[in-house]
Amino acid sequence: MSNIEQVKKLREETGVSMMECKKALENNNNDIEKAKKALRERGEELAGKRAGKATGEGVITSYIHSNNKVGALVDIRCESDFVAKSEDFKSLAHEICLQITAAKPQYVKEEDVPEKALEEEKEIILKQQEGSKKPDNIMEQIVEGRLKKFKKEVVLLMQPWIKDEKKTIEDLINEKIAKIGEKVVVNRFERFEI
Amino acid sequence: MSNIEQVKKLREETGVSMMECKKALENNNNDIEKAKKALRERGEELAGKRAGKATGEGVITSYIHSNNKVGALVDIRCESDFVAKSEDFKSLAHEICLQITAAKPQYVKEEDVPEKALEEEKEIILKQQEGSKKPDNIMEQIVEGRLKKFKKEVVLLMQPWIKDEKKTIEDLINEKIAKIGEKVVVNRFERFEI
Repeated sequence: MSNIEQVKKLREETGVSMMECKKALENNNNDIEKAKKALRERGEELAGKRAGKATGEGVITSYIHSNNKVGALVDIRCESDFVAKSEDFKSLAHEICLQITAAKPQYVKEEDVPEKALEEEKEIILKQQEGSKKPDNIMEQIVEGRLKKFKKEVVLLMQPWIKDEKKTIEDLINEKIAKIGEKVVVNRFERFEI
Repeated sequence: MSNIEQVKKLREETGVSMMECKKALENNNNDIEKAKKALRERGEELAGKRAGKATGEGVITSYIHSNNKVGALVDIRCESDFVAKSEDFKSLAHEICLQITAAKPQYVKEEDVPEKALEEEKEIILKQQEGSKKPDNIMEQIVEGRLKKFKKEVVLLMQPWIKDEKKTIEDLINEKIAKIGEKVVVNRFERFEI
């Protein structure tokens, strides 16, 4: 692949500007996978840097499945009206609506999972392991692993994206942050199903 | 038109069961317009009669205002899949979504208003009347009137319909119940605004 083709491919896959893609490739010996990783890390860094920013703009978006039996409403925020009106941001909001409709998250982020829900889950796990006579340290690992799995099921940001399971929704959002250069936050969502 | 064709036509136009259509035609000398009127008049009576019926079918509908800053998601139920798929029912769901988006209800029905919200509202009213030295019976009437007004603002079913303020949303639903011959219930809704 020529250098220009690589830049184009990276741009297509990440949505980041040509300039940023070129730089990322140069810094990573023209290795496209490494460049992608670097861009993702930059998104995370950028997300961290902008963590304190106010997100007073955004969009309310909805998605109703064609059977009219399930749908979602999402309130997703950004910093500026300019970004709120961009196709990039709107398409992210749409993807997140699809995700919520299909993958049934119950909370936006890890901190939103109530302690009570974790306790209940832990009880279920321990009950299932009853009589297994595993040593305590192994049991702890099992519980920890299962709780992590539980969170990946119920927390929107931790869920694998339905369209590319290698990415989490948080990765998807961080990629957008890297591209649009603004803080993006899923403020709240609702999902109804009959 | 044969008798069977008349029954079919009446069923198509009203959504009421074949049996009910047949009965309505028989009671109205096979005059389809009179039969329709009779079915319509059964409105609230039918709503009352079907109060105990299961509403396992329905649709999830959403509406997003063109500014993308406010939207609603509604879960509205009926008894049969046949009605759930009808244009009549879907258009009712759409009207209710519009109403929720525009008129900001907080509860579906009167019973859903928490006692605490009423207490708080009552306190505000009493505070406003402080020093007015009105007799107790007048104060009681004022409080009662103002609480009723408060409910008409926050309870979806009690709100005047934004498109025809002479009707409440409950009236609008009862009209549809008369037409389609099934119990219709707004199960829940959510409204997001930025």
